[in-house]
Amino acid sequence: MIMKVKEPLENEYSMIRPGQLLFAYFHFASERKLTEAMIKSNAVCLAYETVELKDGSLPLLVPMSEIAGRMSVQEGARFLEKTQGGKGKLLGGVPGVKPAKVLVLGGGVVGMSAAKIAAGSGADVTITDISLPRLRYLDDIMPANVKTLYSSVYNIKAELPGTDLVIGAVLIPGAKAPHLITKEMLSLMTKGSVLVDVAIDQGGCFETSRPTTHAEPVYTVDEIIHYCVANIPGAVPQTSTDALTHATLPYALNLANKGWEKACEDDPALASGLNIIKGQVVYKAVAEAFDLP
Amino acid sequence: MIMKVKEPLENEYSMIRPGQLLFAYFHFASERKLTEAMIKSNAVCLAYETVELKDGSLPLLVPMSEIAGRMSVQEGARFLEKTQGGKGKLLGGVPGVKPAKVLVLGGGVVGMSAAKIAAGSGADVTITDISLPRLRYLDDIMPANVKTLYSSVYNIKAELPGTDLVIGAVLIPGAKAPHLITKEMLSLMTKGSVLVDVAIDQGGCFETSRPTTHAEPVYTVDEIIHYCVANIPGAVPQTSTDALTHATLPYALNLANKGWEKACEDDPALASGLNIIKGQVVYKAVAEAFDLP
Amino acid sequence: MIMKVKEPLENEYSMIRPGQLLFAYFHFASERKLTEAMIKSNAVCLAYETVELKDGSLPLLVPMSEIAGRMSVQEGARFLEKTQGGKGKLLGGVPGVKPAKVLVLGGGVVGMSAAKIAAGSGADVTITDISLPRLRYLDDIMPANVKTLYSSVYNIKAELPGTDLVIGAVLIPGAKAPHLITKEMLSLMTKGSVLVDVAIDQGGCFETSRPTTHAEPVYTVDEIIHYCVANIPGAVPQTSTDALTHATLPYALNLANKGWEKACEDDPALASGLNIIKGQVVYKAVAEAFDLP
Amino acid sequence: MIMKVKEPLENEYSMIRPGQLLFAYFHFASERKLTEAMIKSNAVCLAYETVELKDGSLPLLVPMSEIAGRMSVQEGARFLEKTQGGKGKLLGGVPGVKPAKVLVLGGGVVGMSAAKIAAGSGADVTITDISLPRLRYLDDIMPANVKTLYSSVYNIKAELPGTDLVIGAVLIPGAKAPHLITKEMLSLMTKGSVLVDVAIDQGGCFETSRPTTHAEPVYTVDEIIHYCVANIPGAVPQTSTDALTHATLPYALNLANKGWEKACEDDPALASGLNIIKGQVVYKAVAEAFDLP
Amino acid sequence: MIMKVKEPLENEYSMIRPGQLLFAYFHFASERKLTEAMIKSNAVCLAYETVELKDGSLPLLVPMSEIAGRMSVQEGARFLEKTQGGKGKLLGGVPGVKPAKVLVLGGGVVGMSAAKIAAGSGADVTITDISLPRLRYLDDIMPANVKTLYSSVYNIKAELPGTDLVIGAVLIPGAKAPHLITKEMLSLMTKGSVLVDVAIDQGGCFETSRPTTHAEPVYTVDEIIHYCVANIPGAVPQTSTDALTHATLPYALNLANKGWEKACEDDPALASGLNIIKGQVVYKAVAEAFDLP
Amino acid sequence: MIMKVKEPLENEYSMIRPGQLLFAYFHFASERKLTEAMIKSNAVCLAYETVELKDGSLPLLVPMSEIAGRMSVQEGARFLEKTQGGKGKLLGGVPGVKPAKVLVLGGGVVGMSAAKIAAGSGADVTITDISLPRLRYLDDIMPANVKTLYSSVYNIKAELPGTDLVIGAVLIPGAKAPHLITKEMLSLMTKGSVLVDVAIDQGGCFETSRPTTHAEPVYTVDEIIHYCVANIPGAVPQTSTDALTHATLPYALNLANKGWEKACEDDPALASGLNIIKGQVVYKAVAEAFDLP
Repeated sequence: MIMKVKEPLENEYSMIRPGQLLFAYFHFASERKLTEAMIKSNAVCLAYETVELKDGSLPLLVPMSEIAGRMSVQEGARFLEKTQGGKGKLLGGVPGVKPAKVLVLGGGVVGMSAAKIAAGSGADVTITDISLPRLRYLDDIMPANVKTLYSSVYNIKAELPGTDLVIGAVLIPGAKAPHLITKEMLSLMTKGSVLVDVAIDQGGCFETSRPTTHAEPVYTVDEIIHYCVANIPGAVPQTSTDALTHATLPYALNLANKGWEKACEDDPALASGLNIIKGQVVYKAVAEAFDLP
Repeated sequence: MIMKVKEPLENEYSMIRPGQLLFAYFHFASERKLTEAMIKSNAVCLAYETVELKDGSLPLLVPMSEIAGRMSVQEGARFLEKTQGGKGKLLGGVPGVKPAKVLVLGGGVVGMSAAKIAAGSGADVTITDISLPRLRYLDDIMPANVKTLYSSVYNIKAELPGTDLVIGAVLIPGAKAPHLITKEMLSLMTKGSVLVDVAIDQGGCFETSRPTTHAEPVYTVDEIIHYCVANIPGAVPQTSTDALTHATLPYALNLANKGWEKACEDDPALASGLNIIKGQVVYKAVAEAFDLP
Repeated sequence: MIMKVKEPLENEYSMIRPGQLLFAYFHFASERKLTEAMIKSNAVCLAYETVELKDGSLPLLVPMSEIAGRMSVQEGARFLEKTQGGKGKLLGGVPGVKPAKVLVLGGGVVGMSAAKIAAGSGADVTITDISLPRLRYLDDIMPANVKTLYSSVYNIKAELPGTDLVIGAVLIPGAKAPHLITKEMLSLMTKGSVLVDVAIDQGGCFETSRPTTHAEPVYTVDEIIHYCVANIPGAVPQTSTDALTHATLPYALNLANKGWEKACEDDPALASGLNIIKGQVVYKAVAEAFDLP
Repeated sequence: MIMKVKEPLENEYSMIRPGQLLFAYFHFASERKLTEAMIKSNAVCLAYETVELKDGSLPLLVPMSEIAGRMSVQEGARFLEKTQGGKGKLLGGVPGVKPAKVLVLGGGVVGMSAAKIAAGSGADVTITDISLPRLRYLDDIMPANVKTLYSSVYNIKAELPGTDLVIGAVLIPGAKAPHLITKEMLSLMTKGSVLVDVAIDQGGCFETSRPTTHAEPVYTVDEIIHYCVANIPGAVPQTSTDALTHATLPYALNLANKGWEKACEDDPALASGLNIIKGQVVYKAVAEAFDLP
Repeated sequence: MIMKVKEPLENEYSMIRPGQLLFAYFHFASERKLTEAMIKSNAVCLAYETVELKDGSLPLLVPMSEIAGRMSVQEGARFLEKTQGGKGKLLGGVPGVKPAKVLVLGGGVVGMSAAKIAAGSGADVTITDISLPRLRYLDDIMPANVKTLYSSVYNIKAELPGTDLVIGAVLIPGAKAPHLITKEMLSLMTKGSVLVDVAIDQGGCFETSRPTTHAEPVYTVDEIIHYCVANIPGAVPQTSTDALTHATLPYALNLANKGWEKACEDDPALASGLNIIKGQVVYKAVAEAFDLP
Repeated sequence: MIMKVKEPLENEYSMIRPGQLLFAYFHFASERKLTEAMIKSNAVCLAYETVELKDGSLPLLVPMSEIAGRMSVQEGARFLEKTQGGKGKLLGGVPGVKPAKVLVLGGGVVGMSAAKIAAGSGADVTITDISLPRLRYLDDIMPANVKTLYSSVYNIKAELPGTDLVIGAVLIPGAKAPHLITKEMLSLMTKGSVLVDVAIDQGGCFETSRPTTHAEPVYTVDEIIHYCVANIPGAVPQTSTDALTHATLPYALNLANKGWEKACEDDPALASGLNIIKGQVVYKAVAEAFDLP
């Protein structure tokens, strides 16, 4: 199971043996019930989402970002279709008809992945970031139909009137995503445009974003379609499982070969994944979230 | 109105004045009711779909083919999603995970358009045709992740086992499309793969194809998803209208400036669009279809 | 001498021997003095500019079109510089700053050449044409930062507000170029934008165009800079001479080997270049221009 | 005003209030008069050009380098025109005529930017550097018509005979640029070739370079055209202003929000920009240049 | 059997039944013994190499040209190795070391195929042709490291000094290939350079060419290595067989379904392949070659 | 002399003067005779192969890796030819025939170089690595016909059945290369496929690899061709010498200017190249290899 350990286990906590190692996505801070169950279970909970390298990167989240970024354009293109509620515009246009304009907010893993797919579909793409070195690298490697733009309120506002699809891909590690598009700014866009908020897990980077599901992925605010599925990669489990396994395998092998104690001792990145050890919450943010010691 | 004149007009035939010129898609041969109404209306019906250049090409169908081809991959990618019933595979993969395989049957306008979008999405694309000169041109201009393959039963069968998405884009002008994939061959594909039949208007190029609509676009045969929407471009009317207008405008201007009689006299291509003139069916295939003189 | 035979010869007509063959650019119709001198000289004047293939193409003008198209962007970029009077914008932008927008009117040899160079410089390029098949070919082979657009007054007007540089490359063989941008439409553009009219030889495709020279290449109308040098390739004679020689060589060899009479008899294209034969004007348009028999 | 603070302020020093913060390009070391005025003014002078990151890079100079590199090719192409004094060669050639050869000395920001534009114009480009890792990165990302070459006197000499345009882009931070082309080596080049020296601010990387201005940008030595405008980006102020603002904005915001003292305390990069504080020269190189304490 | 029918059959002519249809490569004009045996056999000999379309193209030779062109670069690269006798140079160079120069003479199917592979290997490629329209198409679709050059003795001589590998790909249908490089011109090249003559079947396009075999593929003249294998595609029979089958299949099906008489009656291209019918030589060039009626 | 100092010197050790500096490839650990002779010679032996930068990279080995990687595909393509023993398949295929599949094991310098050339030749390329960040960079910069794949036994096994050419490019610095393809796995491949082992210097990354020479480069195991030339770059000495000189020059200049003692004192990377100093083995791995102090 790829995405989150919580649902399938909810009725099966009794199956967990004390001291057993669980290595998965937990997202405890936003899951009180799960946290309590795990504390009670006396299991060792090593959470994918808090495994962190020295440089602050989160190696077990990157594969999901790559997938979410690529998927975001696929979903956005779909909801631009009239039959799905959108303005009825084809991303890449055809000879003689100009392509749709795609604005990708954020040039990290998600944004770069999104921009590649949008460009490959023939769209007229603009990608923003506040890091100039990052924009320079993107300028080096992106296809010619991707323009880089310094991220500022002024620049974003200037882009919105002609833009058909916005991909929100701004994530500030460990913090709520900033609201780059406010409710008021929606009026700058034409009716039937689409916003895809890939940062919805962290609160979303549009003011009007609220989490949706694959079952009901979109809603409309001021005639602008919002796609805010919290678990985008869940739609392509075959790809997601492969991608995630590649990232977790080296850690899993170490855990299996050395036992979790030795493995975490040898590798601080892995150790940072420890959230609950036999009833004790050991990850600060989780403890704080529930006022635990 | 872009696609077909028939639906919106059905209850409004009384609005048509005798001798009035109607220049639109009609597809009379498959629409008895419409044909009869138009005969009765005494209008002049100039059908987009039979305007034909000296070289046999159909200039008012090409824009729809370009759109249908591009859309076919967008729709196929969507139905590869697990949440839409597919195998749950991302078209372009991610670093470390190989992309999906897309097989495009037919290297004409539809197929070339489809292959471009599939390649841009990062898929591993194979495009087939029986014309070697056409494959050579495609080899000249396609991105590096498009392979050309001579179309034969043997070659198609060899491709199916690894293929995730098939785009059926084989059209033989004025004839029923051949069944390049039979029901039996479906067993060569893995469960949750997707077939998109862009030739459905001409009977479809898969044996198991039957027309569907945007409201209910897919059905499943032997665990293979079939997408056979007859009017794909209807999903992106903004793009379709622009594209079609570019193609019809020069003809429309001539009709307006010269009157239909002079315009058709001056331009044999336009004349070939005449289907019904004031109660008389003048297009052979339509007359034959309904045993009319 | 590359471009035009007229200037250097004007004082040296006496050097021409009766019956001598002159194979060069003449453009008699717009050069009465030259025409008269040539009639008087009893020479045989075979004009590059009227050598015409069966399909209507002018093989000895194509190389000049290729050069003019490429040069037009180089000149346009220069006059966008503030120090040259322009708005002070770099064609390709830099990472974080969006590139300039270039609109190329006409997708023939000149326009395609211009679009390639503009795209290579990193600009955001749109190329227009009224031929959809031509736009389809351009879509096949152009870099991703070139968009194709059907040419119409509506579409051109919609493009002008954001456009920094317009290349006028619309030529209708044997006719005055149409005025695609009127004086009134200049007000749609921002101050300091640049128009380059490559069709100036045929009257220009902007209403406000009038011929200029390399010595004084630009002038300003309504704060829009106009570059209308009639002989653009004259600025790069090394390249122009090579390009022209490649095109004329096969004809020149035939003339030298067979004599002009036999060579023109064997090759109707060459024969169509005959303008004046020993005092007789034999090219209809020239005769008409000066009311000669 | 983008480039240099000195000219417009020269007559207006009286406007500066004591203690006022000035955040701009100053280049004090080469501007005695300005330095003295600023000392006298009691202002706080924070110089763009000495803001330096931990890795030795100069973030407020990079945008100007990007622009200067791109512009250098545009200017070089212009002066290759016969009408501008050059050999009359088109950078990209045309089908059948080989392109011009461009040699870019230095693979840093300036050189990479120049090589991209030259390649995009269709030239045959060679870029040199003494860093093999840098050449490897350039090999990864440059278009196919850019060749990388290890920088050595031997290799440069071998390139010069066939080269039409040389871009000098070698900058050694904090040191005089080396003379990669000596006066003697000019004889290896053909008449009418062009040298553009982007390193002129640091003394130039050709022996025969001396600063020029946009008003009179070139001069000729041994029939080789030298373009040595010291402030190339000044020609495109619209682009330059945007680019520079993107780089300075984060620093300016901190200065405004925190005051310069706190801002410089928090960010050593910003602190390194302090040149003069209320009458005291605090930047070593400036103090040394004028024998100040 | 792919290439030539003659060898395997030589001892087995007795197996051929009178009236039997043989559809294969024959090249009778240069194979007297085979011709006589076939006359005697009373078979119907339909030769691949003379099947000719209305436009003069030879559809059953094109696949072999595509393979020979691609292989020619592979073989040329190999013989540039020191261990194979060449100058010891890598086609694509490495970062810091410039690539080898490849000159492709002829821009038809063979030349275009060769240029694509050479460019893909990172070489610095120049392709020549006397057709400017062909060079224009190549300019449209070739990678950026392929330069087009008008074919002339002057231009070829100018290229030879720097060239490491020459691919001779000039074929004049039905005529001896011209000698584009004479023995004397070899002295312009550096020792250890390689010539590959793909036109060897038609006499070769270098003066010093003489046919070789895969067993002994090269010989040296004036220290220049000559590769003149007459049957290059024979080295990759798996690819060749597939390619050829795709081209012959439609003809073979018609022959099988209709019988050769009806099939040839219906298709003049196929009829042009008839060389010997039951003892009668019916192809002019073959009859002439052996003074037969 | 480029590659190895040993052979040419073997009979000429007497020429070495005591205290003389030798700066070259030595590979002492696997050359007892050479080691002993050098100890006896009293020379100072500074070995290219052990010069090591702070980050563990070996700057004087990289150029050889770049060449070996590029050459590996050239050699592999050659031995896929039937006439060389292979299956007779052309790397890039032709229009209508799919290209060969190339599997590159290892995404470092060797593997990246190999993948570039294979892709340029039109092959269908897959490159593997265990580093996801490396695969992400490759995904950014590689041509579209290169797929990245996470390296695992499972994934490699899944690739082998369709693969025609495998490039083994996995090097673990200072350790024996792992056997990624075992003898047993050979049976997964089709007869006439080719393995090229670029890691043969470190024991090879295929179980069945054993070193070969340019004189006899291949052997066959289980009908799979093995190419294991230990010194691949030796085949292109012109390129190799240039590439190596670029890398060694800065070190050589320091050695010449400062003397080896001062040069090694100033530069720890250079010091790490010291293997034998006047009779004393000072490099640990060499001392251990021969049980010397």
